Amino acid sequence: MFESRGRIMTDNNRRQADIPAGASPIPKMPGTAPGLYCPIGDKVIYAVPGVPYEMREMMEHFILPNLQERSGERTVIRSRVLRTWGNSESGLAEVLADSIDQLDKIGSPTLAFLASGIEGIKVRITAKANEEAAAFDILAKEETLLRELLGDIVFGVDDETIETVVLDKLRAKNMTLTVGESLTGGVMSSRLSSVDPEMNIFKGAIISDGPPRGRIGMDRAIYAARHAHEIYGTDVSVAAVAPDPSESQPRGTVYLGIIIGHKEFSDKVALPGDRNRLRNYAVISLMNFCRKLLS
Amino acid sequence: MFESRGRIMTDNNRRQADIPAGASPIPKMPGTAPGLYCPIGDKVIYAVPGVPYEMREMMEHFILPNLQERSGERTVIRSRVLRTWGNSESGLAEVLADSIDQLDKIGSPTLAFLASGIEGIKVRITAKANEEAAAFDILAKEETLLRELLGDIVFGVDDETIETVVLDKLRAKNMTLTVGESLTGGVMSSRLSSVDPEMNIFKGAIISDGPPRGRIGMDRAIYAARHAHEIYGTDVSVAAVAPDPSESQPRGTVYLGIIIGHKEFSDKVALPGDRNRLRNYAVISLMNFCRKLLS
Repeated sequence: MFESRGRIMTDNNRRQADIPAGASPIPKMPGTAPGLYCPIGDKVIYAVPGVPYEMREMMEHFILPNLQERSGERTVIRSRVLRTWGNSESGLAEVLADSIDQLDKIGSPTLAFLASGIEGIKVRITAKANEEAAAFDILAKEETLLRELLGDIVFGVDDETIETVVLDKLRAKNMTLTVGESLTGGVMSSRLSSVDPEMNIFKGAIISDGPPRGRIGMDRAIYAARHAHEIYGTDVSVAAVAPDPSESQPRGTVYLGIIIGHKEFSDKVALPGDRNRLRNYAVISLMNFCRKLLS
Repeated sequence: MFESRGRIMTDNNRRQADIPAGASPIPKMPGTAPGLYCPIGDKVIYAVPGVPYEMREMMEHFILPNLQERSGERTVIRSRVLRTWGNSESGLAEVLADSIDQLDKIGSPTLAFLASGIEGIKVRITAKANEEAAAFDILAKEETLLRELLGDIVFGVDDETIETVVLDKLRAKNMTLTVGESLTGGVMSSRLSSVDPEMNIFKGAIISDGPPRGRIGMDRAIYAARHAHEIYGTDVSVAAVAPDPSESQPRGTVYLGIIIGHKEFSDKVALPGDRNRLRNYAVISLMNFCRKLLS
């Protein structure tokens, strides 16, 4: 491992490989630092590295399953997350108020809201039952009910993100995508290329300081999308841009532009947050707009 | 606030504005949810929103300073972080072993290593003294000593990141920068545009699926850098690319290419991690290479 990376194994690395008597290493180590499983009588001490990524991997794949197995617990708890964009957390709570009151009386399933910033707002349904099938049944029924109440703002479930949802839709339609990025400065591309590293659907992007002066209003977003469209020749091109300084639009105004084939679509949104959060909100707003147009 | 964003203030939002008798709101609220300062006798209860960003802002700017003031503590603890790239955490510990042993005997300052993944490895010096000036004096002496031992791998101090360091160097030389991104797929651009939102130095990027087949070895990185260079006409262009599949290079191999004026520079590195971590390691390796060339 060290040799293949052209690095020297230091005494420190060697010391990390020591294992106390009676303990065993936790399998599936993502880094060089080991995790340890140390049974002491009928108790267990788990030791994990401090590096967050390594620690998390071991927690998820070894320690939590191991604890559950040791606990002998029979109750099954399963949850499902509906991911939404287009309403605030308090707005969602309002829409679902009656539903929540009813569930609170019954006790199961329970609902929780998780505002996840750049990933939208999550509504988590948690069901408790004696068997997995029964838990999934509760989840499915509640999901149907929630979708009726929430409508089009639900963009995905569980691990789906707005970028996987949009890329899946494009894949199903055999379409490709490019991005004109100025306000979002690479955030959109990095999110898309992270889930499509082979760049089968997401073909590329032009990152620049924005449309030329003189372009104003939603035409700015269309200009940026068309520019990427002409260079890459893909089926769909999208862009989120800030207003021209001459427009004196309020802070947080973002124009969205989407080109699908020969058709042009644009929208204007008002987003909160400092610049970095605004960039990510712009990305999710733009991708959500694209999702709706592709539906 | 709600009006300006075209949103409706819900009953929930209204309820959030209630303040219990005797409590006062924490100033500087980043969102709509308030924080509360509630003195009870000679104790205080602080209430903060669950949204991590809002909670952190209030902790840092109100609660921690308030706690320190209330504690009447006289000892001053100050720390400084040296940020490095180019050696492993255990390698650094080895280089600094003697220094750490000596400090452990004296008790101050103390050293800690923080592997921060995409931000490199941090060496934190912490000094305790009766007065701020004395603490800073200890930090300055230790920093000088560490820099002698660590040499060129120290790229920045405290809040400096590899991107702020590179952009500062370019600004000082009145130079501009573009990026050819394929492997890094927008990650480099989003990091650069995040610290240079006006795009005064970082002028843009071309994101694509990589150099054409036939280009192999370090020439691939030079090709990608030159492509961005020609389109944007900036002083400096950089690119980090994966090997062509035909090269059968080991996993984690990354080629770095940099063009400064008419000169071309290239390098090859072996990086660990899954694809997303590898992309960020490629960004820091490329920017660190650029930093050294600009020094």
